[in-house]
Amino acid sequence: MQNFTYRNPTELVFGRGTIARLGKLIPADKRVMLTFGGGSVRRNGVYDQVARALEGREWVEFWGIEANPSVETLREAIALGKQEGVDFLVAVGGGSVIDGTKLIAAALLTDEDPWDLVLRGRAERTVPLATVLTMAATGSEMNSGAVISRYETREKYAFYGDYPRFSILDPECLYSLPARQIACGLADTFVHVLEQYMTTPGQSRLMDRWAEGILHTVIEIAPKIRENPRDYDTMSEYMLSATLALNDMIRMGVTQDWATHMIGHELTALHGLTHGATLAIVIGGTLRVLRDQKRGKLLQYAARIWGLTDGAEEERIERAIVRTEEFFRSLGLKTRLSEEGIGEETISEIERRFTAADDRFGEAQNVDGAMARRILEACL
Amino acid sequence: MQNFTYRNPTELVFGRGTIARLGKLIPADKRVMLTFGGGSVRRNGVYDQVARALEGREWVEFWGIEANPSVETLREAIALGKQEGVDFLVAVGGGSVIDGTKLIAAALLTDEDPWDLVLRGRAERTVPLATVLTMAATGSEMNSGAVISRYETREKYAFYGDYPRFSILDPECLYSLPARQIACGLADTFVHVLEQYMTTPGQSRLMDRWAEGILHTVIEIAPKIRENPRDYDTMSEYMLSATLALNDMIRMGVTQDWATHMIGHELTALHGLTHGATLAIVIGGTLRVLRDQKRGKLLQYAARIWGLTDGAEEERIERAIVRTEEFFRSLGLKTRLSEEGIGEETISEIERRFTAADDRFGEAQNVDGAMARRILEACL
Repeated sequence: MQNFTYRNPTELVFGRGTIARLGKLIPADKRVMLTFGGGSVRRNGVYDQVARALEGREWVEFWGIEANPSVETLREAIALGKQEGVDFLVAVGGGSVIDGTKLIAAALLTDEDPWDLVLRGRAERTVPLATVLTMAATGSEMNSGAVISRYETREKYAFYGDYPRFSILDPECLYSLPARQIACGLADTFVHVLEQYMTTPGQSRLMDRWAEGILHTVIEIAPKIRENPRDYDTMSEYMLSATLALNDMIRMGVTQDWATHMIGHELTALHGLTHGATLAIVIGGTLRVLRDQKRGKLLQYAARIWGLTDGAEEERIERAIVRTEEFFRSLGLKTRLSEEGIGEETISEIERRFTAADDRFGEAQNVDGAMARRILEACL
Repeated sequence: MQNFTYRNPTELVFGRGTIARLGKLIPADKRVMLTFGGGSVRRNGVYDQVARALEGREWVEFWGIEANPSVETLREAIALGKQEGVDFLVAVGGGSVIDGTKLIAAALLTDEDPWDLVLRGRAERTVPLATVLTMAATGSEMNSGAVISRYETREKYAFYGDYPRFSILDPECLYSLPARQIACGLADTFVHVLEQYMTTPGQSRLMDRWAEGILHTVIEIAPKIRENPRDYDTMSEYMLSATLALNDMIRMGVTQDWATHMIGHELTALHGLTHGATLAIVIGGTLRVLRDQKRGKLLQYAARIWGLTDGAEEERIERAIVRTEEFFRSLGLKTRLSEEGIGEETISEIERRFTAADDRFGEAQNVDGAMARRILEACL
């Protein structure tokens, strides 16, 4: 086991009817700005629940944080927050709204342009933020990370701000989500786990079991959600799985990877593909190209997740990767670049970007431009 | 899934050599008191590591917090802390030292007698505390709970204070532990999980998997520790398992039980038996007497933990309980009251205490005096 530190101070407030507790959770002396995406929270009743919970106090609202939140949009929110003297933020939405709000929280305390904060990668000081989660996928409600895009240059980078003070997770908020968003959320959750699991074997049998526990859960609930996306217990498992997949709890003492995410971010930046959809395409290529490096864990994954214990090692590994792709296809997602009309031009651009920045991603820091090309070619 | 809140702000600092970071983790302006048990930390080098880490600052020391920490001893520590103007506590030891220090942390801010705090059950204000863990069992290093004894009346009650600000966990600190302490620590860890797992089935498949992950880990590492208690990776798994078994992470949205613990506490209070040793005796009785109530989870436990999937339900349940007892016996622990010379007199006294206090423990609040008698009789 590797040395590690773990500290996650976010309070989870989980369950039916918990949005009503929002008002009491925010200190009385704070000037609050609520941040939102599009108008879905107006249609599904979440906005009304939030407004009722805040009855008796004033607040500022910022609408329009888009999927893959852009620094261009966030600059407007930051200007509004400064003008209104905001010192507490509540993101009401999914990962994009929360990610964007983490950058707002940092930018409210500085005169720097927010893109410079993103390029620096980490903010030391932020105003406190909290979340009301309406989409389960990124884990942003219980971690300090954010991914911010810059549309004018088609760039997308990770940024670390503060952990939310609290996050309200009411599974009923997920009932009205489009099936494709749920599919992408399940894929995102699944690949978040693989990024922390599919590395060096034997580092922690306990963390392996916890990671596998989330994978089993996601695989078991996916068909149930397709049958009935308004079943409370199933949607609770989905919501909790997404949070626990990326809140530091399954990475204690183990090596992480994240190469699939770095390549996926480029596909989103260049083509606007939904994050979870990019991961469902790239992960198969990553596992195939790096199968020797990941052999031990791939065999464990094959046995414990997919029950593949017979046959030669190579065969078990290939079958486990195929089963993974079949799982994503069962969600209605694509697993090939060609299905999205993406080909050599994009592969060249991603290779060029990784090489120009001298990037080396992955557990072994060996996913450079040339390796990214090999992975993407395996996804064609 | 039930509604829940989760918040655990303790920072875990885990791994080889991490005691050296103690000095930097304590705010510079704090007046520190270190609390200790007996002298084992002098012999195994932990005291020297702590002293080196604090070089350049002054501190107060209190020695002699005993196993099953007593309010009688803690009153002395509280008096010393008040006299010295202490405003930061570092417990260097196992669960008993940490539990006792949680009561000290609360009592330093009040003139009340600490036993009144224990009887009230919960402290609102405490001075900050941190821990250097030297024994893995109770999870006290990452939760807010404590169990405090009063020797003059042979009473033992739970008390809730603050979460440690940080806890330093260096698995090498466990190398010199006596085999029996490790056995009791493994039993304690195992039963902590069962208290949160062996309840209503189907509340959370994810929490079930995480609980089972700890059980599998403990079962797998126990024989390895017997072979070599100085293997770093094995002792890391043990230390992490004990912490994660009782830090709120596996109880999200699920019913808990704790009847076995409440009965076990009485055995410690009346006979001085080590906590883990009492659990190894009582859990079999609890599971046998409440087998109908716990049928669904017992069958899941039988299948997933012990691979028992053939035969009639009753048979699988009985075999799972026997396998559990065999596991404790493989650790060198006893599983029968009679082996400890405990019989009817103690059973009557525990029945009397539960009945007099009108106590009703367990997931269904049905473990009253009469039920405690039935459970204890099943442990004879």
